[in-house]
Amino acid sequence: MPERTGLDAFFAPRSVAVVGATTNELKGGYSIIANMLESFTGPVYPVNPGRDEVLGVKCYPSVRDLAGKVDAAIVFVPAASVPAVLEDCAAAGVKAAVLESGGFAEVGEEGKRIDAACREIAARTGLRLWGPNCTGLVNTDPFIFTPFMRAPNANERLKPGTLGIIAQSGMLAAGFMLQYVISGFFTVSKACAIGNKIDVNEVEVLQYMAADPKTKAVVAYLESIVDGPAFLEVARDMAGRKPLAVLKGGRYEESAKAALSHTASLAGSDEVVEGALRQAGAIRVDDFNELMNLGKAFSLHPEPFELSSPSGDGVAVITVTGGGGVVLTDLLRSAGMRVPALTQKTLESLQGVFPDWMAPSNPVDIWPAIEQKGLAAFGDSMKAVLADDRVDGVVLLPFASRMLDFFPFDEIGEAVRSSGKPVVSWVFGDIRYFEALEERLREYGIPVYNDLHSCVLVLKSYLSFSRQAREKA
Amino acid sequence: MPERTGLDAFFAPRSVAVVGATTNELKGGYSIIANMLESFTGPVYPVNPGRDEVLGVKCYPSVRDLAGKVDAAIVFVPAASVPAVLEDCAAAGVKAAVLESGGFAEVGEEGKRIDAACREIAARTGLRLWGPNCTGLVNTDPFIFTPFMRAPNANERLKPGTLGIIAQSGMLAAGFMLQYVISGFFTVSKACAIGNKIDVNEVEVLQYMAADPKTKAVVAYLESIVDGPAFLEVARDMAGRKPLAVLKGGRYEESAKAALSHTASLAGSDEVVEGALRQAGAIRVDDFNELMNLGKAFSLHPEPFELSSPSGDGVAVITVTGGGGVVLTDLLRSAGMRVPALTQKTLESLQGVFPDWMAPSNPVDIWPAIEQKGLAAFGDSMKAVLADDRVDGVVLLPFASRMLDFFPFDEIGEAVRSSGKPVVSWVFGDIRYFEALEERLREYGIPVYNDLHSCVLVLKSYLSFSRQAREKA
Repeated sequence: MPERTGLDAFFAPRSVAVVGATTNELKGGYSIIANMLESFTGPVYPVNPGRDEVLGVKCYPSVRDLAGKVDAAIVFVPAASVPAVLEDCAAAGVKAAVLESGGFAEVGEEGKRIDAACREIAARTGLRLWGPNCTGLVNTDPFIFTPFMRAPNANERLKPGTLGIIAQSGMLAAGFMLQYVISGFFTVSKACAIGNKIDVNEVEVLQYMAADPKTKAVVAYLESIVDGPAFLEVARDMAGRKPLAVLKGGRYEESAKAALSHTASLAGSDEVVEGALRQAGAIRVDDFNELMNLGKAFSLHPEPFELSSPSGDGVAVITVTGGGGVVLTDLLRSAGMRVPALTQKTLESLQGVFPDWMAPSNPVDIWPAIEQKGLAAFGDSMKAVLADDRVDGVVLLPFASRMLDFFPFDEIGEAVRSSGKPVVSWVFGDIRYFEALEERLREYGIPVYNDLHSCVLVLKSYLSFSRQAREKA
Repeated sequence: MPERTGLDAFFAPRSVAVVGATTNELKGGYSIIANMLESFTGPVYPVNPGRDEVLGVKCYPSVRDLAGKVDAAIVFVPAASVPAVLEDCAAAGVKAAVLESGGFAEVGEEGKRIDAACREIAARTGLRLWGPNCTGLVNTDPFIFTPFMRAPNANERLKPGTLGIIAQSGMLAAGFMLQYVISGFFTVSKACAIGNKIDVNEVEVLQYMAADPKTKAVVAYLESIVDGPAFLEVARDMAGRKPLAVLKGGRYEESAKAALSHTASLAGSDEVVEGALRQAGAIRVDDFNELMNLGKAFSLHPEPFELSSPSGDGVAVITVTGGGGVVLTDLLRSAGMRVPALTQKTLESLQGVFPDWMAPSNPVDIWPAIEQKGLAAFGDSMKAVLADDRVDGVVLLPFASRMLDFFPFDEIGEAVRSSGKPVVSWVFGDIRYFEALEERLREYGIPVYNDLHSCVLVLKSYLSFSRQAREKA
């Protein structure tokens, strides 16, 4: 048996061949070669027997013509042609092949035969395979971008970050990449669409990210887990060290069947998965936006926070809307967190900014204080609450409006930073001020969401990750 | 006992006095008079003993000076002065007073005494009271806008719609008004912040909306329900006729306490409220954005839909992303809906647009069909699925990108319209195309959301409301 190389050949190849490169702009083979020529720093070789040149670059009939020159190949040709291409790759000394084409096990018997042929080649030659039926991978440092969607100047637009993304779905990975990365929702370290995973699977990718110093947190969408015990072992290792959030699709008969036809995945028993993931310390979610919201939170702050209460789940709410405080308290309690009474010292500090007729409590309803003392009351209340030992984290409910011009962002930000406690914020009000609010709070590591559920999910995840770190320490 | 007039004097007064009108732009009394002078079609009278003129209009020292001239008064003066103002109002023949000031029962003993004095005046004179401690109300036809937030040209910006909003929280009502109405999220018929409701309460407002031909659906945020049986009677009457969604805050001890200090509300047992609301046919939600998402859905389509299956809960999914279909199916099943197998006839129609190697099923994963036949496959699949008797509603998962220029919106829209079935859509992908997708689908009554949870909540609510209508028919 040949030695299997690790994933470095995928994430950091020195040179890449693009098999199926074309000048037809409607085809994925065009997007791949155009993206790679534009954004990859090493040599990129188009391969296509029908062309002499692609985008001004010499095109080779076969990977065999590039013997010894290529670390990785991106393969985008019909499934039936893939085994022959892989033989070429192995013969030419290629270490890693990213298979993006569909038409494998997910489409039936003929696809399964092709699938088996590819596996056999990998086992015999040591060539590592990624996919098929996926958009491949993105690494921001060093830069490589394999998806078959055109992304002009990808290397300039995708700034290096600390978040790792794993998605067992090509369209989703590509869609989210566009939606969240382009909109500045978060920056990523590595984004991986693993498809049918006939060789490289979620366990190996997760192990790689768990060890990768550039990746500090991981969010994963999976339709199956090929090796449960190994996956849980990585998850346990990451607990308290690198946050891991998982969306696992295929809970019901109907959806498990859909997962099977989508990526040839056997979904496995949901109860077992749920329990095991929770026990291993991973965060389980059930919608993509929850996964992305956690991605935003952990890309802003992947380290554990300091916890001050013994149970590490005490939350204070500072709100301009009494109703928001009431509903948020319901949601925090439903999610198993506490909204504790504040200490006498904190209440006394708050009374200093509150009107005489109003006794402060938690949630801290500061609108009357703002009416009396102006927006400085927000900063003073924040400081008082963050200093309270019963408070492990805070949710802010400010109001987006012209008022934000007078909002004590720096004061609040510095108080948050020096407290070492997690703070998340809701935004509501005048949408013209949403972006400004979000940008200013993000500077201080405070993620902003426009629904209370997301605030609760994020704070709960921050705190439970921090408790894991405390238990391990 | 004097006869109590109904709420018409609030929603459609012929003339209005603004007590506490001022030219100080930092005060609520300025915003109210400026808004009213600009947007109200009848006479508006500023009242303030300290001024001769406000914004170029003669100002009166007391409402008594306007005897017989005023239907409604908006009162924004310190709580302690309110009882005297109400005596003036009653003496001058005013029928309805909107009290926006805070400082009543929510702040303690002195406030409670003022509160009691106001109630006594109302009982003795028949003057109806709205609030206090709220932003009052908005009616879009005829137009009246009482909130103490400045909203220039409110009458031009707030187009008449069919949705009624009730919120027991001033900041929230004002915030959401700004956020959702200004961003075109929905249009409203009436928006009511009812505050401490010392006289007019949520039951009476809901009764009014239930009878109001201009209001076709209602969303309500409540911290207490003063008369449970009466509220449930209206809810039962609305079931299947006008959709009603309720967010009821104050489930836990901590939040119930916050509700008490916020609007002097006793929240009541949550289990009782939950069960009773469900039994009466109302939709219960637990976050503001859920309430607003339902508002968007029901403002687009407040009538019941035609149901074709016996159980009325069969959902088809049409998706460009297999992973999206898997997770959506999980969420639909978790929410108690079915994702049924399609009829043989439907499967045969779908096979006409699907590649030979791919057997169609539900969820309908149409990416391979699009690759083969172009975006027309989306329209053909939609028609086939809508014609299926097992399908009561559809969730679409399209991909926002340049592709939308070729998307068969009209074909899909016409198919949806003629089917009479509810369709909701998710949007993901390139955010630059989100607005275009949403606008085009909205033309055909398809609401769009950027998370799957919202799609599931809305479709579930559409279908359960439609089942209520079928049961009542």
